[in-house]
Amino acid sequence: MNNILPSYVNDAWWTPADTSTAVAVRDASTGAIVANVSTAGLDLAGALDYARTVGQASLGELTFHQRALLLKEMALVLTERKRELYALSSCTGATKIDSMVDIDGGIGVLFTYSSKGRRELPNAQIYADGAVEPLSKDGSFLGRHIFTRLPGVAVQINAFNFPVWGSLEKFAPAFLAGMPTVVKPATPTGYVAEAFVRILVESGLLPAGSLQLVSGSVHDLFDHLKLGDLVAFTGSASTAEKLRSHANVQVGGVRFTSETDSINASILGTDATPDTPEFGAFIKQVVTEITVKAGQKCTAIRRVIVPNALVDSVVAAVTERIAERIVLGDPRAESVTMGPLASLEQRDEVLRQVQNLRAAGGEIVMGSTDIPVVRGLDGSVLNAAAGAFLEPMLLRFTDAQADAVHEIEAFGPVASVIGYDTVAQAVDLVRRGGGSLVTSVATHDPKLAMAFMEGIAAFNGRVLLLDRDDARSSTGHGSPVPQLVHGGPGRAGGGEELGGIRAVFHHMQRTAIQGSPDMLTAITGIWHAGAAVQHGDRHPFRKTVAELCLGDQIDSAARTITLADIEAFAHTTGDTFYAHMDEKAAAANPFFPGRVAHGYLLIAWAAGLFVDPAPGPVLANYGLENLRFITPVSPGDSIRVTLTAKQITPRETDEYGEVRWDAVLTNQKEEIVANYDVLTLVEKD
Amino acid sequence: MNNILPSYVNDAWWTPADTSTAVAVRDASTGAIVANVSTAGLDLAGALDYARTVGQASLGELTFHQRALLLKEMALVLTERKRELYALSSCTGATKIDSMVDIDGGIGVLFTYSSKGRRELPNAQIYADGAVEPLSKDGSFLGRHIFTRLPGVAVQINAFNFPVWGSLEKFAPAFLAGMPTVVKPATPTGYVAEAFVRILVESGLLPAGSLQLVSGSVHDLFDHLKLGDLVAFTGSASTAEKLRSHANVQVGGVRFTSETDSINASILGTDATPDTPEFGAFIKQVVTEITVKAGQKCTAIRRVIVPNALVDSVVAAVTERIAERIVLGDPRAESVTMGPLASLEQRDEVLRQVQNLRAAGGEIVMGSTDIPVVRGLDGSVLNAAAGAFLEPMLLRFTDAQADAVHEIEAFGPVASVIGYDTVAQAVDLVRRGGGSLVTSVATHDPKLAMAFMEGIAAFNGRVLLLDRDDARSSTGHGSPVPQLVHGGPGRAGGGEELGGIRAVFHHMQRTAIQGSPDMLTAITGIWHAGAAVQHGDRHPFRKTVAELCLGDQIDSAARTITLADIEAFAHTTGDTFYAHMDEKAAAANPFFPGRVAHGYLLIAWAAGLFVDPAPGPVLANYGLENLRFITPVSPGDSIRVTLTAKQITPRETDEYGEVRWDAVLTNQKEEIVANYDVLTLVEKD
Repeated sequence: MNNILPSYVNDAWWTPADTSTAVAVRDASTGAIVANVSTAGLDLAGALDYARTVGQASLGELTFHQRALLLKEMALVLTERKRELYALSSCTGATKIDSMVDIDGGIGVLFTYSSKGRRELPNAQIYADGAVEPLSKDGSFLGRHIFTRLPGVAVQINAFNFPVWGSLEKFAPAFLAGMPTVVKPATPTGYVAEAFVRILVESGLLPAGSLQLVSGSVHDLFDHLKLGDLVAFTGSASTAEKLRSHANVQVGGVRFTSETDSINASILGTDATPDTPEFGAFIKQVVTEITVKAGQKCTAIRRVIVPNALVDSVVAAVTERIAERIVLGDPRAESVTMGPLASLEQRDEVLRQVQNLRAAGGEIVMGSTDIPVVRGLDGSVLNAAAGAFLEPMLLRFTDAQADAVHEIEAFGPVASVIGYDTVAQAVDLVRRGGGSLVTSVATHDPKLAMAFMEGIAAFNGRVLLLDRDDARSSTGHGSPVPQLVHGGPGRAGGGEELGGIRAVFHHMQRTAIQGSPDMLTAITGIWHAGAAVQHGDRHPFRKTVAELCLGDQIDSAARTITLADIEAFAHTTGDTFYAHMDEKAAAANPFFPGRVAHGYLLIAWAAGLFVDPAPGPVLANYGLENLRFITPVSPGDSIRVTLTAKQITPRETDEYGEVRWDAVLTNQKEEIVANYDVLTLVEKD
Repeated sequence: MNNILPSYVNDAWWTPADTSTAVAVRDASTGAIVANVSTAGLDLAGALDYARTVGQASLGELTFHQRALLLKEMALVLTERKRELYALSSCTGATKIDSMVDIDGGIGVLFTYSSKGRRELPNAQIYADGAVEPLSKDGSFLGRHIFTRLPGVAVQINAFNFPVWGSLEKFAPAFLAGMPTVVKPATPTGYVAEAFVRILVESGLLPAGSLQLVSGSVHDLFDHLKLGDLVAFTGSASTAEKLRSHANVQVGGVRFTSETDSINASILGTDATPDTPEFGAFIKQVVTEITVKAGQKCTAIRRVIVPNALVDSVVAAVTERIAERIVLGDPRAESVTMGPLASLEQRDEVLRQVQNLRAAGGEIVMGSTDIPVVRGLDGSVLNAAAGAFLEPMLLRFTDAQADAVHEIEAFGPVASVIGYDTVAQAVDLVRRGGGSLVTSVATHDPKLAMAFMEGIAAFNGRVLLLDRDDARSSTGHGSPVPQLVHGGPGRAGGGEELGGIRAVFHHMQRTAIQGSPDMLTAITGIWHAGAAVQHGDRHPFRKTVAELCLGDQIDSAARTITLADIEAFAHTTGDTFYAHMDEKAAAANPFFPGRVAHGYLLIAWAAGLFVDPAPGPVLANYGLENLRFITPVSPGDSIRVTLTAKQITPRETDEYGEVRWDAVLTNQKEEIVANYDVLTLVEKD
């Protein structure tokens, strides 16, 4: 048999010798065969081992920043060749906009992780999580948390609806964490995933073993997983349940996270009457969620929850907008705005679920289950029976409490409208979904928004508040964004993906470490108070990033502050706050013994004490962090400053890096006056 | 039957009517009956509902800070009456030091969470997690994460070895999060848990429904759990597996976390030869872990991994120290330093596992399995057969690869010694444990520590680095501390407890929220840039915490900065960095157009522009956060500042609160010069 979709394992393309069990995958609009799929005879255990050895080794040579830069280069390569992906994507039934969500959306995830990886992670391989915890009074025993990558392989099992975005949103954080990936796309659209993997392979950007592709069934793969591996699954709740119950997950320590489609809701607030902008925005959003990807989105709105008095208006407005805007057909045909479902099997499954909804009291108030008349490639009428076409459908349940509307998902262009009277009722209806990926609320009333949020937040991974202020700029109910968590409790799978750098940490182990300041400094790459310091011949500001070491320190001279200094500073800056100017009033303040120096005077003078003025490697002070004023400074007190190199972060693509300095100001009694971190840019070499 | 240990449900004490199935619990040293345990007929579904309704409601009226203060008061009440707990604790076989670990350790957890709750959480009910994420270019659509409490009940199932600490380390974070607790102590030591619950009930500090106690079997409790509930389990891996497999956990959305005893390791570094302080510290630690609580700690050292050349020295040193220090007996007897196991059943189980270890190649090189001669209450020899006594035992495995030593746990005063030659071998041996709560490494070599850490971090929840610098101040291999995560991957249960505020979030749902700046401000209680502002008649510094509103703002006048100003500032402060003083050198710097104003000048002048000098509600500026200098300011530029009330945190026990202000400096071209948060203390009213 020809045209077998290859897998990519052990850094080589692979197709089965025995093709007798291959499955044909068809164009969603025309029914023509696009590819055949089989992994008969594929050595999955070998692929896992390859990832754990070769993949771990090659990724282990790179820092977070180096991996982040590779993600950016991959994004650029995919952008360059995205037409190839668009062409294949249209075979899945995707319109141009659908493909954009999948392909550009996926590329966008790579860009976001590249950027966040360089801004929010150190240029290192270990991440220090949270603050240092002093565990002894003398400061000789400290605690801290670190994240180190998991030592195994990330198995990513994806759904058919977003073959590119769905893969890349899992791959990017795994790659950034340093975990090799084995990706298993869904069979009906696996040929699109194969195409992006091929582009990445051809780019030469992938470190050895960092990405492998299984185009087809994963057979006995779970039997070969072990502690240190993880599985990230997107798909149906029933498959998730089956996979999660595997002994290697239940007792073997394999991490398992799932994101399953859920019965998401959108609420129209009681203030959002038809004369308000919120009503229009709500209708537009409902139509978008029914029709984009022909409703095949795990985040799509299934339950339209509106005030009882507005049910008729909502049904009418949705119906009108769909009639005006939606043209069903082959997505390659001109002016088509909604394509078929991904396959005939999907279409039939949706029809079955619509039948179940009707049997439970749902009345179809828009669209029908008949085979629709649709537009073909050249504008002619297409043979719709060969394609997986369905009309957009809206059902109405008079009984909002019917179990079916909260439990049955028709994974297509189908939503149900139910009514409510009070906020408590609407909250209860949302909760009946048993945990959702997302609920949106259309309201312009912050108090109403807060009341809804208190009731529904714990049942949702994401809540979108839609009103006149964000309707035009909103990324939409159905669109996860890489910056925010995607996933939800209960029925939604109970997992978390994305959420910015949080997703990187899903691929790492958090470990509490305890030890002396020197040990914590060695492990974390961050100087800890109490660790060794060096006072060299050179001022540390005369050292480049390459020359600087953690613990390089300068102890300044002391400088006495007089009342005249304080008054002069007050008059120059204009800061004549009474604590600096009025002895009696200052003494009456609970925190001051009398007139005291300005905090800004102290840190400005501290800079005067530690700075080395002539041009040198230190280019700029770009900020301060965690400044706390501890002990007030009275006239006659003197201050000195100790500045210590605390963290050194060379940048990959600039001629300089970031150096964070620990600054401690003390007075003549050795009391701490202030402490803070000084952030500087320093030449690399 | 008398002396049935009561349960506490629906805010009332309960004992069964039918006592026919009650189980007798005996004193560990003497075998005398201490209590009888039965929950026959207890309405567990009713208790869960009571927690979800009454408990959620009463805790829901309190803020994080109010709950934190209650935790402190509970800690004080328990401290006052801890003698009662010590008396009962000794019946469990605990020595005074063992009891201190359990009772004072448990009370310490309450103090820590009280303190952290007030320092690290807002005085509110919702916690904003992470930074705001701009999702549109015009700033009208933002994303952020919030934590809200789970709407159900926290079921806490504890192990027998720490009836007080084990309960309180779960209760404190649940209570702080606002989740009501149903605690189920282990039967053999449940009478100690009942005592601390009784003290708390009598104190009147517990909000209605916030704590219920099940003294005995939980029967069908899991059948009544649902989405929004969580289970925190400590105990054996096999029980954890059974509970985790319940449908309400697998598919019902009930959160389940487990902490199971694991085959923890302690490594002696190759540098830690007998002439080093590390060797002595290592031996001391091994002896402590074998003997404290008679080795009944889930964190105890089971595998002593030492350089092959030092195996004999280690065995000899441990044997010598135990002979010198350890006196076995009734812990109520004078000079006894090690008590019995908790019960005869535990003793017999340990003997069975020792037999399994011997059968697999372990040779007993210290101690024996014979019934030991032990000290009774009045100094006489006790009838050891009635008590659960065991000698401390050390086994030696010549074959470090034997499965048994990495898989079998004798949960008592038993450890095994195995040898290694290379770091890679030692790392591999640690990993063979399949995931541990803790591994310690005795070494004074930071490079060696780093090499071990890279290999073992991902297999451990905690790693302790022991050396001469922290040996005296270390809290010890076997002691979880509330500041750090307790729990580990794989065999250790895969869960996380403690870890400071992290454990509070385990009881909350993270939800991504999206909306306009006004909506995010309303939901989070934090003013977001772009949200509504108010310019009132009064300067915001003239308002108390009670009067201030989010968005209260002052727009300052503009002030021009001259070269003379810069030079004067340089000379006053001593900060003559070339970027301020030397036009040519400054222009050669990649970030500056020429001479620029000092960053410290800018923020000092900004204070002059926004401050309101006369005495008023604003008492002090105690710090700055997240200061970034964005656009350099050249001579002739002018600056102005906008200061906006961003977060208002009244303190419960002080006359003032914390107000965080958003400060934005702009120049005459409306470019942002700097932004930062100004932290002030403001009178409450």
